[in-house]
Amino acid sequence: MTVTTPQGFRAAGVAGGLKASGGRDVALVVNDGPSRTAAAVLTGNRVQAAPVLWTRQAISDGAARAVVLNSGGANACTGPEGFADTHRTAEHVASVLSATAATPEDEVGAGDVLVCSTGLIGVRLDMPALLGGIDAAAAGLAADGGDDAAHAIMTTDTVAKTAVADREGWSVGGMAKGAGMLAPALATMLSVVTTDAVVDPATADAALRAATRSTFDRVDSDGCQSTNDTVILLASGASGVEVTAQALTEAVTAVCADLSRQLVGDAEGAAHDIAVSVLNATTEEAAVAVARAVTRSNLVKTAIFGNDPNWGRIVAAVGTVPEDVAPYDPLTLDVTVNGVQVCRAQGVGEPRELVDLAADREVHVEIDLHAGTAAATVWTNDLTHDYVHENSAYSS
Amino acid sequence: MTVTTPQGFRAAGVAGGLKASGGRDVALVVNDGPSRTAAAVLTGNRVQAAPVLWTRQAISDGAARAVVLNSGGANACTGPEGFADTHRTAEHVASVLSATAATPEDEVGAGDVLVCSTGLIGVRLDMPALLGGIDAAAAGLAADGGDDAAHAIMTTDTVAKTAVADREGWSVGGMAKGAGMLAPALATMLSVVTTDAVVDPATADAALRAATRSTFDRVDSDGCQSTNDTVILLASGASGVEVTAQALTEAVTAVCADLSRQLVGDAEGAAHDIAVSVLNATTEEAAVAVARAVTRSNLVKTAIFGNDPNWGRIVAAVGTVPEDVAPYDPLTLDVTVNGVQVCRAQGVGEPRELVDLAADREVHVEIDLHAGTAAATVWTNDLTHDYVHENSAYSS
Repeated sequence: MTVTTPQGFRAAGVAGGLKASGGRDVALVVNDGPSRTAAAVLTGNRVQAAPVLWTRQAISDGAARAVVLNSGGANACTGPEGFADTHRTAEHVASVLSATAATPEDEVGAGDVLVCSTGLIGVRLDMPALLGGIDAAAAGLAADGGDDAAHAIMTTDTVAKTAVADREGWSVGGMAKGAGMLAPALATMLSVVTTDAVVDPATADAALRAATRSTFDRVDSDGCQSTNDTVILLASGASGVEVTAQALTEAVTAVCADLSRQLVGDAEGAAHDIAVSVLNATTEEAAVAVARAVTRSNLVKTAIFGNDPNWGRIVAAVGTVPEDVAPYDPLTLDVTVNGVQVCRAQGVGEPRELVDLAADREVHVEIDLHAGTAAATVWTNDLTHDYVHENSAYSS
Repeated sequence: MTVTTPQGFRAAGVAGGLKASGGRDVALVVNDGPSRTAAAVLTGNRVQAAPVLWTRQAISDGAARAVVLNSGGANACTGPEGFADTHRTAEHVASVLSATAATPEDEVGAGDVLVCSTGLIGVRLDMPALLGGIDAAAAGLAADGGDDAAHAIMTTDTVAKTAVADREGWSVGGMAKGAGMLAPALATMLSVVTTDAVVDPATADAALRAATRSTFDRVDSDGCQSTNDTVILLASGASGVEVTAQALTEAVTAVCADLSRQLVGDAEGAAHDIAVSVLNATTEEAAVAVARAVTRSNLVKTAIFGNDPNWGRIVAAVGTVPEDVAPYDPLTLDVTVNGVQVCRAQGVGEPRELVDLAADREVHVEIDLHAGTAAATVWTNDLTHDYVHENSAYSS
């Protein structure tokens, strides 16, 4: 039920010694083809880690043979030396995979290897440990190695996150790590998604961008954006099934949505998972902008931690979105929390005492703008003592 | 040393019974002239409390006779009835002040009365208490009543905030309340600034806007914007001294800067006051945008609470500002914390162990963009357990 569920993939996850804990910290995912189609969506942060810079170049031909991922170090803000470490990592993976190549066409170049790293910023990687881990991972590559790989990319995650979408004769599988940016050390969100459908690079790229836009991009646990965020799609074509762009997008989106929900559910220090839905906006972009203003309000997030359906803080957050971004009449705002319309026409609605936030981890906030027909949902978490503790008590 | 320091003003602060604690909750500031020049800067939030809507109308002629302020209720999201309450409040002040008018010209209309409220959102004001408080405040108006007024507008503030700028034959005085948006219930920032200089309305308006832009607007304790924020400038002309626009702006800015620093220093739950300065930006707007991205990063704020000079989180926050907003080369970023350049050219600089954050409440973060010659500073606070406690434990 992971990246090795689709045909044509092998994976492994091993302990190379990067993590002080001795846990698994090196993962390898290999696409055995026949197709090597690949796409990637990378962090929008202008401060980009070495592996992000590398992967941006390596993906430009729309193809990749393997993804190597490490926890135990982000390799961000490490200068030219850090970039050389990433280059050497890719070279090493290429060399190890080429050593077992059956034919000259199976030989792998460094440019066919995508790299992802997660961990502390501003610290060089322990390269002997990483290269040794790659050797061990390559030796352990298996058609059922997806779960091991999913475990090896965990940092502060408490559970490995995997998902799959089975379709007629083909499938999409995926793994992800990260606590929705809510963990210590700028918890990077990394995800590898695989499919055995027959897909060309342009279709893969469009499908992955559409999927991330409505899933990972709408998980906003603490509004902070990592230097390392990476989502990769690999397509082996091993099923022989040609799929439409629409079918691919749907299945990739389903897997990314499943993984995104798991990220929110495992966000560190969180006591509630909060879905903020904005209804009847003029455009989807307007709905997202309003939802994001609410999910980024510390006052809303602390209120929900306190099990307080504080609609005043919600409408105040909605009111911070400029009119040119989201046209609506502030006097018509309705807010519903867990089915109770506590605010009606910007005034007092049903009694807030009817809302029971303590009963369930999941909270649903609905904001009706009465301005159009578009809608969007952004997920976040509450702001808790444990969040402050996790993010202040550990150096990173 | 407050709003009654300049000549031509009387003030009072009394307990009307709006606060459950029985503390002072109604303040009145009266401009006895000869000039009644006034200006106001109001919240940019699109959800605006009734007193904000009222004051926007009342200030449109550039004149005001009095400001009435209450704590114990924000009168926000209270619908047409809430606006009627504000109207009635202004009418009552006008009526009470007119009763003691020496001449017909001294009679006051409701449109000459500005109104400010702070407290819970979505709850109607206790009007009998407020009107009774106004009667008591009017009866107690005194030329040394500024400190009483400053106390009556406090909500979660632990100390009253007042400031003064003495100039040659004239002065500027001020009071403020609010914990920089960091307190429970969307702590509104209210401030009244007075001067006895001879000033026309356009000059007063320009001076107040310039002053707030570089002071109150650069206090960003938790990034949340109130429905009630109001800053008012009243000019009596009682000194008879005509001042230049530049001199007025300088003195009003000095008072607003003093009050702003006091707001940061009294932010609830904060353990550190953090000045984020951005140097060598292309424009002041770019510098402010970068500084604000850092002051709004929960990961930076929790790190500083943990006395961790976490420059990785700082550069990651800097990197989230779009290039069209703040042009700079991310590879040249330097970050200095309390004088130690912990990040140089986006890489490791001096040892972070040299930074001692535990020694002092005040923290100075300097970010050098190496892109131009403009600079700006935004103040914030750290994100602490007490912040979460204050904002989750109390309904509001």
